[in-house]
Amino acid sequence: MSLLVVGSVAYDTIETVQSKVVDALGGSATYISLAASYFTHPVHLVGVVGSDFKKEHIDLLSKKNVDLKGLQIVEEGKTFRWSGRYHKNFNDRDTISTDLNVFETFNPIIPDELKNDDFIMLGNIDPPLQLNVLEQINKPKLTVLDTMNLWINIKKAELLEVLKNIDVLIINDSEAELLTGEANLVKAAKQILNIGMKYLIIKKGAHGAVLFNCDKVFSAPAYPLENLVDPTGAGDTFAGGFLGYLSMQSEINFEVMRKAVVYGSVMASFCCEDFSTSALENLTEEKIRNRFNEFAEIARF
Amino acid sequence: MSLLVVGSVAYDTIETVQSKVVDALGGSATYISLAASYFTHPVHLVGVVGSDFKKEHIDLLSKKNVDLKGLQIVEEGKTFRWSGRYHKNFNDRDTISTDLNVFETFNPIIPDELKNDDFIMLGNIDPPLQLNVLEQINKPKLTVLDTMNLWINIKKAELLEVLKNIDVLIINDSEAELLTGEANLVKAAKQILNIGMKYLIIKKGAHGAVLFNCDKVFSAPAYPLENLVDPTGAGDTFAGGFLGYLSMQSEINFEVMRKAVVYGSVMASFCCEDFSTSALENLTEEKIRNRFNEFAEIARF
Repeated sequence: MSLLVVGSVAYDTIETVQSKVVDALGGSATYISLAASYFTHPVHLVGVVGSDFKKEHIDLLSKKNVDLKGLQIVEEGKTFRWSGRYHKNFNDRDTISTDLNVFETFNPIIPDELKNDDFIMLGNIDPPLQLNVLEQINKPKLTVLDTMNLWINIKKAELLEVLKNIDVLIINDSEAELLTGEANLVKAAKQILNIGMKYLIIKKGAHGAVLFNCDKVFSAPAYPLENLVDPTGAGDTFAGGFLGYLSMQSEINFEVMRKAVVYGSVMASFCCEDFSTSALENLTEEKIRNRFNEFAEIARF
Repeated sequence: MSLLVVGSVAYDTIETVQSKVVDALGGSATYISLAASYFTHPVHLVGVVGSDFKKEHIDLLSKKNVDLKGLQIVEEGKTFRWSGRYHKNFNDRDTISTDLNVFETFNPIIPDELKNDDFIMLGNIDPPLQLNVLEQINKPKLTVLDTMNLWINIKKAELLEVLKNIDVLIINDSEAELLTGEANLVKAAKQILNIGMKYLIIKKGAHGAVLFNCDKVFSAPAYPLENLVDPTGAGDTFAGGFLGYLSMQSEINFEVMRKAVVYGSVMASFCCEDFSTSALENLTEEKIRNRFNEFAEIARF
């Protein structure tokens, strides 16, 4: 099934206590597409970069069957840059700088041949742009959305509008609390589901993720990650693995979503084991299947 | 199989944002014994109270087949009091007062007829007292220990000494980090297992619990608790459910411990649904089995 991914493509400068990388490949659409590429192809990426976007990164995405006909390249523009520093515990990070560059005026235009894609992943961008994408496409089979605290704080009305028009929201626990004012995960989940989407996934970082619909709950185990190098992009990678797996299933229901959440967790666990997209560049079906089996062994009782 | 529980018996004054209870039954040995009483009996409680300890609480414990021949009652003494206030999120709490009273000079004396008990639960007390208990008893089948940040801070050498002589340590994630200086859960677990115990359980509050031995990991799901009233005693209740279940098994190994961790989580989830020991006073086998099945359904994929 065809998968459309809309989001940012960026160059990240990331510092951890141990190490640092400068201008490394990043962005929500990048992580989502790379993760999804292990399950389905082509993955159609819609985003924007400047003319400084490196050929090696075009080649990397193309090699992974990420179709770039929806990637706008702005001549003499500069690609979105983000720079951040992680604390020792990796749970907290400080943003050092955000230079939106060409992303500031990003207007996602869906090429005609992608308007019938079955699965739509709206990465974390300005909610009106997410709504704009939904207006361009034809009845998809499933629409999944990610967002962030910034939009909850400054564009809540617009965000709520787009949330009424999607099937699955992926959000983290602090965002769920910010959105609802409710610290209790279950109460927050009920409030969010009341907005209108069918499924809600609340990510809890190192503590796993929880899937809700109106009457069921699935709690995916936390993977005991010993070699945590860089959590940047783990949430996007989760979404990519989740939707990549779903897009290959003949039917979408809660039972299938359980496995999809675990595949999302599998991909996110790989993502954290190296800087930037490095760990996502050389995975194999076997490595992914083995880690899925590890998750099963960890959760079994 | 016979189960010996050593720890505190207390009266707690607990404030939450919603409500408050004054001088409610509490203490580690109380919660552990009540939880374990649903799996095995008699449970032998060793602790100390003052002459102000109420007959209704003696009756409550006795009714649950908690044997009190090891409970010292100090004439004209006052029972240990603790008072605390929970923040809105329930993750943080402030201690308002701690009056050790008779607990200050507690010297756990194990009655001769309890010295051959098979399963030993050393609740959170001063590590030299825990060691003292181990010296009094005869080769138990399994020894489980709980501790707290206070002892890690002020009696680390004595705590490490007792940790060399137990089979299972139950600790929470912040205590594991304090003990090892390692924020990564897996690395911290390896360091702790190197001290000498066979099994380690790291509790993560609302995020579930993780069981480790030298080569396996089991991650118990978090229960989606909507009705969180008072988390006081949840850790002790976990230990009671865990060891109560184990004490009824013919063999102790990692496979059995998986289920024991889930039974511990089941009991802890009940504990949080009311103040003090209230929710632990009227459970039934059926309620416990149903919630265990709920855990299985939540974790299944």
